[in-house]
Amino acid sequence: MQSLQKLITRPLLSYRWRFHTSCHSQQDMLKGKVDKWKGVTVDLGSPDCGLEGTYIQTSLRELDAFAGMLRKSLKQWKTEGKRAVWLKVPILQSRFVPVAASQGFQFHHADKQYSMLTTWLPKDHCKIPHFASHQIGVAGCVLREDTKEVLVVQDRNRETSHMWKLPGGLSDPGEDFGDTAVREVFEETGIKSEFQSILTVRQLHNYPGAFGKSDLYIVCRLRALSHDINHCADEIIGCKWTDVGELATTQSTSLISTHVARLVLHGFREGFDTIDIGMKELPAVFKNMTYKLYHRQIPDL
Amino acid sequence: MQSLQKLITRPLLSYRWRFHTSCHSQQDMLKGKVDKWKGVTVDLGSPDCGLEGTYIQTSLRELDAFAGMLRKSLKQWKTEGKRAVWLKVPILQSRFVPVAASQGFQFHHADKQYSMLTTWLPKDHCKIPHFASHQIGVAGCVLREDTKEVLVVQDRNRETSHMWKLPGGLSDPGEDFGDTAVREVFEETGIKSEFQSILTVRQLHNYPGAFGKSDLYIVCRLRALSHDINHCADEIIGCKWTDVGELATTQSTSLISTHVARLVLHGFREGFDTIDIGMKELPAVFKNMTYKLYHRQIPDL
Repeated sequence: MQSLQKLITRPLLSYRWRFHTSCHSQQDMLKGKVDKWKGVTVDLGSPDCGLEGTYIQTSLRELDAFAGMLRKSLKQWKTEGKRAVWLKVPILQSRFVPVAASQGFQFHHADKQYSMLTTWLPKDHCKIPHFASHQIGVAGCVLREDTKEVLVVQDRNRETSHMWKLPGGLSDPGEDFGDTAVREVFEETGIKSEFQSILTVRQLHNYPGAFGKSDLYIVCRLRALSHDINHCADEIIGCKWTDVGELATTQSTSLISTHVARLVLHGFREGFDTIDIGMKELPAVFKNMTYKLYHRQIPDL
Repeated sequence: MQSLQKLITRPLLSYRWRFHTSCHSQQDMLKGKVDKWKGVTVDLGSPDCGLEGTYIQTSLRELDAFAGMLRKSLKQWKTEGKRAVWLKVPILQSRFVPVAASQGFQFHHADKQYSMLTTWLPKDHCKIPHFASHQIGVAGCVLREDTKEVLVVQDRNRETSHMWKLPGGLSDPGEDFGDTAVREVFEETGIKSEFQSILTVRQLHNYPGAFGKSDLYIVCRLRALSHDINHCADEIIGCKWTDVGELATTQSTSLISTHVARLVLHGFREGFDTIDIGMKELPAVFKNMTYKLYHRQIPDL
């Protein structure tokens, strides 16, 4: 860990904040990129933003100069009919954030090493899109074809440790539903499996543990590729193959597991095509990207 | 807009930062709440956090004192076996963020008036859950029962303005899929409608416009409750009722709209129960909360 004094002294020696001190208006302004929605984005981490420097600085004069540039820039952008202003601030330059907040900016989002602030210039209703609003949890309903059993676990969580539930967890960034299900099942139970379909999707708002956001819980039907359980003792206290009919009727599970078990019983009787939400991979309009589309599979699609 | 000088002077006069200057160790430490996962949360906006004050401060001594408290606290928490440390910072106190970053903290998320920083104390793999990872866009496939037509629009977006697409937009915070669809359809076209089912879900990562996050696009089947179009000229340049068969075959639409149209044609022929992902509202385990569960509707569920 570096001492604060070091952090403060070093940039004073090795970097110098450079404010464009000319009295010509363009040089007192922040420089941003304009988008097609008449928005402006200024990245304080970019050498082209109109000011330069790094790290913790505490000179009042510097903050004051930034405040002046920002005020002037906002006035100019308003005159030009600009709408959203986006300010990207590297984490180590967060001393500028209170200055921007005092001129009407709020946090839009932040991730690891930067925060993004924004303000809406027109007087009408703010049209800045919200940041990501949902976390994704995925469970695997792993079925054995030979015994018609389903894989269930008891987790370490004290309040619900008596309940048998489907293994699962949160999606990693950029991970497809089925991949989360297969990965979480393997991590928690040692069972290998293969994605077949989605069985159900639950949407719940103000989810405890989602930092004020919403939660989607998605249950995937997986086909077991192995049968020998080797469960992760850190997360799981019990793991077993159980009769689907028993999961459908036990009180020691969640309402969603009961629903899933009843769907699966119906699937065993009438065919899984009666309960499956199937998946298809298709090319996106964006170059070299594909997406996964989930819907009922019908003959002519 | 207040001048920076005012912002800086006022708190110096009306507030005083109070650091617990006693040399007894407990008083030099930050005070946080401990959770069941051995995490600690310190809220710098709370009067109980171990330091007090508001607004922009630029004294080196104050930042230095905070750096010392944080360093000492982290050392103590490590000794105690604590795991995640969460630091909630009000936007106007963001001057503390670089200090925390220099001691290993990163942004977990930020929203409007605060940022949340976090660091993982153990040496093993970081188990801090990710923040919300998906934005939700919802489209309405509004069907007229009398003419078997579907409602389509052309939006102002230059690149795709020639395409006929389903009306829709991003979910507001806390909004259910069906409610987004009905609201967006009304805002864009003036048509009133009623939620029936989900037809398809698309998952796409690194979505342009989702700030590096993923996008879920959900198409709902809606029943038209009115027929007279009154479209929003700000967003939409064209709006019409069109034959579903035409939408299924035209080149001037997206691959998803083509799929949806084909599903609907099948639904008209064989019954909507063959294509619908139905909805049920159920009580959550959390007090006074309900959730919506989407799955295939079967007789015994």
